[in-house]
Amino acid sequence: MTYRPGRHFLQIPGPTNVPDRVLRAIDHATIDHRSGDFAELGRACLDGMKSIFQTLGPVVIFPSSGTGAWEAALVNTLSAGDKVLAFETGHFATLWVKMARNLGLIVDVIPGDWRHGADPARLEERLTADASHEINAVMVVHNETSTGTTSDIPAVRRAIDASRHPALLLVDTISSLACIDYRHQEWGVDVTVGGSQKGLMLPPGLGFNAIGAKAIEASKKSNLPKSFFQWADMLEANAKGFFPYTPSTNLLYGLREALQMLEEEGLPNVFRRHTRLAEATRRAARAWGLEMVPLVCAEYSNSLTALFVPAGFNEAALRALILERFNMSLGAGLGKLAGRAFRIGHLGDFSELMLAGTLAGVEMGLELAGIPHGKGGVDAALQYLVEA
Amino acid sequence: MTYRPGRHFLQIPGPTNVPDRVLRAIDHATIDHRSGDFAELGRACLDGMKSIFQTLGPVVIFPSSGTGAWEAALVNTLSAGDKVLAFETGHFATLWVKMARNLGLIVDVIPGDWRHGADPARLEERLTADASHEINAVMVVHNETSTGTTSDIPAVRRAIDASRHPALLLVDTISSLACIDYRHQEWGVDVTVGGSQKGLMLPPGLGFNAIGAKAIEASKKSNLPKSFFQWADMLEANAKGFFPYTPSTNLLYGLREALQMLEEEGLPNVFRRHTRLAEATRRAARAWGLEMVPLVCAEYSNSLTALFVPAGFNEAALRALILERFNMSLGAGLGKLAGRAFRIGHLGDFSELMLAGTLAGVEMGLELAGIPHGKGGVDAALQYLVEA
Amino acid sequence: MTYRPGRHFLQIPGPTNVPDRVLRAIDHATIDHRSGDFAELGRACLDGMKSIFQTLGPVVIFPSSGTGAWEAALVNTLSAGDKVLAFETGHFATLWVKMARNLGLIVDVIPGDWRHGADPARLEERLTADASHEINAVMVVHNETSTGTTSDIPAVRRAIDASRHPALLLVDTISSLACIDYRHQEWGVDVTVGGSQKGLMLPPGLGFNAIGAKAIEASKKSNLPKSFFQWADMLEANAKGFFPYTPSTNLLYGLREALQMLEEEGLPNVFRRHTRLAEATRRAARAWGLEMVPLVCAEYSNSLTALFVPAGFNEAALRALILERFNMSLGAGLGKLAGRAFRIGHLGDFSELMLAGTLAGVEMGLELAGIPHGKGGVDAALQYLVEA
Amino acid sequence: MTYRPGRHFLQIPGPTNVPDRVLRAIDHATIDHRSGDFAELGRACLDGMKSIFQTLGPVVIFPSSGTGAWEAALVNTLSAGDKVLAFETGHFATLWVKMARNLGLIVDVIPGDWRHGADPARLEERLTADASHEINAVMVVHNETSTGTTSDIPAVRRAIDASRHPALLLVDTISSLACIDYRHQEWGVDVTVGGSQKGLMLPPGLGFNAIGAKAIEASKKSNLPKSFFQWADMLEANAKGFFPYTPSTNLLYGLREALQMLEEEGLPNVFRRHTRLAEATRRAARAWGLEMVPLVCAEYSNSLTALFVPAGFNEAALRALILERFNMSLGAGLGKLAGRAFRIGHLGDFSELMLAGTLAGVEMGLELAGIPHGKGGVDAALQYLVEA
Repeated sequence: MTYRPGRHFLQIPGPTNVPDRVLRAIDHATIDHRSGDFAELGRACLDGMKSIFQTLGPVVIFPSSGTGAWEAALVNTLSAGDKVLAFETGHFATLWVKMARNLGLIVDVIPGDWRHGADPARLEERLTADASHEINAVMVVHNETSTGTTSDIPAVRRAIDASRHPALLLVDTISSLACIDYRHQEWGVDVTVGGSQKGLMLPPGLGFNAIGAKAIEASKKSNLPKSFFQWADMLEANAKGFFPYTPSTNLLYGLREALQMLEEEGLPNVFRRHTRLAEATRRAARAWGLEMVPLVCAEYSNSLTALFVPAGFNEAALRALILERFNMSLGAGLGKLAGRAFRIGHLGDFSELMLAGTLAGVEMGLELAGIPHGKGGVDAALQYLVEA
Repeated sequence: MTYRPGRHFLQIPGPTNVPDRVLRAIDHATIDHRSGDFAELGRACLDGMKSIFQTLGPVVIFPSSGTGAWEAALVNTLSAGDKVLAFETGHFATLWVKMARNLGLIVDVIPGDWRHGADPARLEERLTADASHEINAVMVVHNETSTGTTSDIPAVRRAIDASRHPALLLVDTISSLACIDYRHQEWGVDVTVGGSQKGLMLPPGLGFNAIGAKAIEASKKSNLPKSFFQWADMLEANAKGFFPYTPSTNLLYGLREALQMLEEEGLPNVFRRHTRLAEATRRAARAWGLEMVPLVCAEYSNSLTALFVPAGFNEAALRALILERFNMSLGAGLGKLAGRAFRIGHLGDFSELMLAGTLAGVEMGLELAGIPHGKGGVDAALQYLVEA
Repeated sequence: MTYRPGRHFLQIPGPTNVPDRVLRAIDHATIDHRSGDFAELGRACLDGMKSIFQTLGPVVIFPSSGTGAWEAALVNTLSAGDKVLAFETGHFATLWVKMARNLGLIVDVIPGDWRHGADPARLEERLTADASHEINAVMVVHNETSTGTTSDIPAVRRAIDASRHPALLLVDTISSLACIDYRHQEWGVDVTVGGSQKGLMLPPGLGFNAIGAKAIEASKKSNLPKSFFQWADMLEANAKGFFPYTPSTNLLYGLREALQMLEEEGLPNVFRRHTRLAEATRRAARAWGLEMVPLVCAEYSNSLTALFVPAGFNEAALRALILERFNMSLGAGLGKLAGRAFRIGHLGDFSELMLAGTLAGVEMGLELAGIPHGKGGVDAALQYLVEA
Repeated sequence: MTYRPGRHFLQIPGPTNVPDRVLRAIDHATIDHRSGDFAELGRACLDGMKSIFQTLGPVVIFPSSGTGAWEAALVNTLSAGDKVLAFETGHFATLWVKMARNLGLIVDVIPGDWRHGADPARLEERLTADASHEINAVMVVHNETSTGTTSDIPAVRRAIDASRHPALLLVDTISSLACIDYRHQEWGVDVTVGGSQKGLMLPPGLGFNAIGAKAIEASKKSNLPKSFFQWADMLEANAKGFFPYTPSTNLLYGLREALQMLEEEGLPNVFRRHTRLAEATRRAARAWGLEMVPLVCAEYSNSLTALFVPAGFNEAALRALILERFNMSLGAGLGKLAGRAFRIGHLGDFSELMLAGTLAGVEMGLELAGIPHGKGGVDAALQYLVEA
């Protein structure tokens, strides 16, 4: 390890900067996962997560990544050969599709250009056309981490309802949970998938499912093989604050602390803060004249901003320069955006001044990389922050 | 949290006492899992784990518990309806069987009394009888965490070889890895399963598979649905020090530090230390006159010691008293040993004086619980430690 | 750094084992020492220390060792050429005398054999004989860290009162504070000196003075040069929770946490625990047949126990062996006890099982060093702990 | 504690932002300060500090603040009634004078306007005029933390030499050490004073003296009362890596780590970085049109920048607004600058992006406070950073 002065700016769209309170909470002696003290911890985490997902129903916590929670959503609700409908909103939506296929599901993908959210109208069409109700579930990514595009989940729900189709609605909120308003219960989502390393401000290592009543029912008929990610044993053990196998005790310490912090700030304030910092980022982007990946304003993500570099330039080179010169990590272009668009994470434990530093790093990086751009991005962001 | 003076003695057979160096290593800012710094970390962990498993072949690391690593061993090597042979050596062997069945495998269990390790002779019989080679794999728990009984893996291997049977050998070393000598490669094991929270001295949250060449071959034909636990993507990404999805970065910091510490002590010394502390524990047990769960001396575990309480007494009450009075957690009787036997963990970051405190807590607990026992258990242990 | 398995047993009579909660509290970002947040911290520490000293009057906190707090007690209350009366109770009493002389005071020392506390009768004689009241202060060490001997402060106070002498009473409680009952106000002490690294369970780095009204009066006339240790500026800034120069912010975080922990346990319980663990230690010592340094039972310290090794043996060799073999630090023989007596610290964040480990280390060390001793020290201690 | 999103920006001119590596190093179990392990730690710190002060002579380390190290410099070299010459360069110079007077020294102060460094010409005059060599020492603050003005120490030395005066040269480098090039030995300084909480990136709690040969000689004749701050005992114990009383062990862990980090970066790079970030700050200040406190460019500090607010505005209100709105602490106007000038700390563990965030906070604060200022301060800084 060689000392690089100052804090690293971890401005990828997750893992995010983990606050000291969380890291220090994790840094405590591991306790007996069958003890009364553990049961208190377990309950605090399980209950607290309900308020984050905005649901009264159960939330389960896996010692896994968000990817594991994707798998849990599928294997608990579906059976071999089941049909699933998905939207090609970006890289992660595509990976989730790939996973579903690996697990033996038949996935019908509504194609997309990676610059739009899920289209409720097309969904309604498809579901209406599926008169025999062969489609068992609809998979939607709430916030595409690869493109910075948010899908309108209530509209998705309305489309399903309008088509009077019984398909389950499975939603990935990995990069929106605790950043962008999301209401598992009110919006009628059946399974919501989350991870620890984004808005929850934890290191990676925990995956979540918020589970609706209809999903519980579905799980009783699901025949996909499962054990580690099985809900039934989990829910039974959770009832007393325990887990069916050894949980990630120290990350749960961190989760308890993060939940406490989010409660201190208040979820509505958390969402307002993300909205505000995201808009400031977009002001900078406009000043720079860099094209945003999402094409529809209403779908701009408040967690991250993905920006194209002009033709002839490579985003990877820009990020490498910024990392080398300014000790800041930015998000790579993923999948078909590789080389073409980079991503600025502005989620989690983040503030105006951290954003100013972040945007300054991008602006100086553009200059040093010789990428044509308008000046004054940082200024535009600051101006917005002062006025808003 | 209410202050209880002094350190908690976490003497369950895992999670074990996590040393400060490891906790402090975990307590660092999360880094970009696609960065060059991460690749160094990834490689250090992946390479270091090879020496722990004593293999030159690949080791994969999942952000999961050891249970997840069990699942990985099965879903990567086997197909729906495959036959597996297992030994009923105790609670965890039984859980692994249950998992295999959940995953759609047909498990043939060689019954056991929970007081012996796997019997190589019976294995050879069974395999020899299986002339058509319908059995695809043999599952063995190296060290039964519920009984403190160790199975003789080289003898198991010889039994398979003697029967000229092609079944894969899958071994669980969750509570023996980095405690008791174990040689994945030399012993001809196909998949070895491990977890972070025992001899590796980490919090729970990482699962491991050491993978032999024959298992890699098997994985190419395996058709069990899998994604999170899939080896193929993992091995491909690991080649450059990366992971196919977000890894548990901060636990990997801890793993790197733990590997460094084990290297400083030297694995042979680690094994010798565990042997020595285990024998001292058994000297105490003999002085107390408490019956050990394992019946064969050669199978005594060096990680933990499971002891029956006399008829008419409940081990749970004893443990509750010891927790309340002496701030020490002991392992519960599990499965059919519940109420009848408790377990003393003496593995991981552990020393003579910590053992003395542990045994003192048990001895005082026996006295206070009114459990008939011989005096002088601590003394017998100390005498052994001084002389040996 | 080379890994030594298990926790180090830091059984010197201070610094003591710092609990995780305290270390983790210290491990937080330093804040502006002129901010409102700091003022809250400052007040919590200053107020909390009053309850520890059992006084309603002011306590000041120096970023220094306890030695610094000794100096503060002297330079704030006395003037060049003032006469001070002291007791030769041991090494630290002697060092305090040396300091007083360095500072230009004339010290009259009542000689002692390092095996008794301060003798109130001799004090009364001396003070009564000092009809012209030339003696300005009496210095007493409440708990001699070098000998494990406690002086009876109320009796000292009564002796001063009986002689109707106006001398100030200055008391060092460095190794008794928050271990052994001590009442600054009720006992009529004028200045009490404390440090952070013993019963307060902190690393070294803070020194304390509890200051009585008469000492405040004396400080107005004192002419010894002082600046860093001056009370006047300190008390003025403390009134608002601040300090006249940059305080040791991070150690104050630790102090706030330690005060919280002591409150959770309750000071009377803290004292009872120390009494109990000390008596258990003495039971072990008696079983070993090692002579205790203090000769009077009523003066046995509850913080530490100093034991002679038999003639012909060197305590330093014993300690070196125990450190090497058992990873435990014991206290050296100091001053004229060097080579002859070692010290077992049983203060601070300490419990029955830690004591059992400690005594086991001593007992095994005696055996390995070939020092003649009775067996069964640990047993005797455990027997006492079970019965008491 | 209520959660405020994002990291606090601690941009006072010390204590500075403590890097994680240092905090985590401090967060380890305290060890026996008489052990071999401690001696290694002690030597590493004592030796390492020599390279920081750029001297081959001894450095001593007190468990105190920098204020304590001021006192040590005086009480070890001077005697009651000695004459000292000082410069009124700002608040801290004035406090040091006050301390010297408290300690019984006669201080002759060369008046100043708090906007210039020490004037070598006036010094030479005074010393030349002091034909009888009544002046025993000259006190100079290398970097006035209250004004952001640096004095030219080689020129001060030359002035003393030119006057052929034997006075000792005592220099305070509390806010310049490990920020601005400083050479104790080459520049012929007799005692240099430092503290831990600035360029050394530690929490407050350690004070340093680098001691020249002439100062050692002077200390043998000095008669000011001293004990805690006495060099003689300290130097004797330090020879073996130990301390004459309990040192601040855990802060020494932090110091060892910080020394390692500074070595990794390389002191010349550390100085260059501070120069660069300071110049960027001044570019911002010029764009804002805020007047700098120092009047001479050559005396601009590279550790901090003090800026006047326009008449009619109060810097305290500006700082309060910035703290409330942007979670950043700036330095107060001290002494006669209170209300008139605020200070931006840009020292220690600090980088371009942290500076950008800092300057953004000031710029937005000026706007929100309605303080007339030029726009584009951040831009000017970034432009400089890109070009330089």
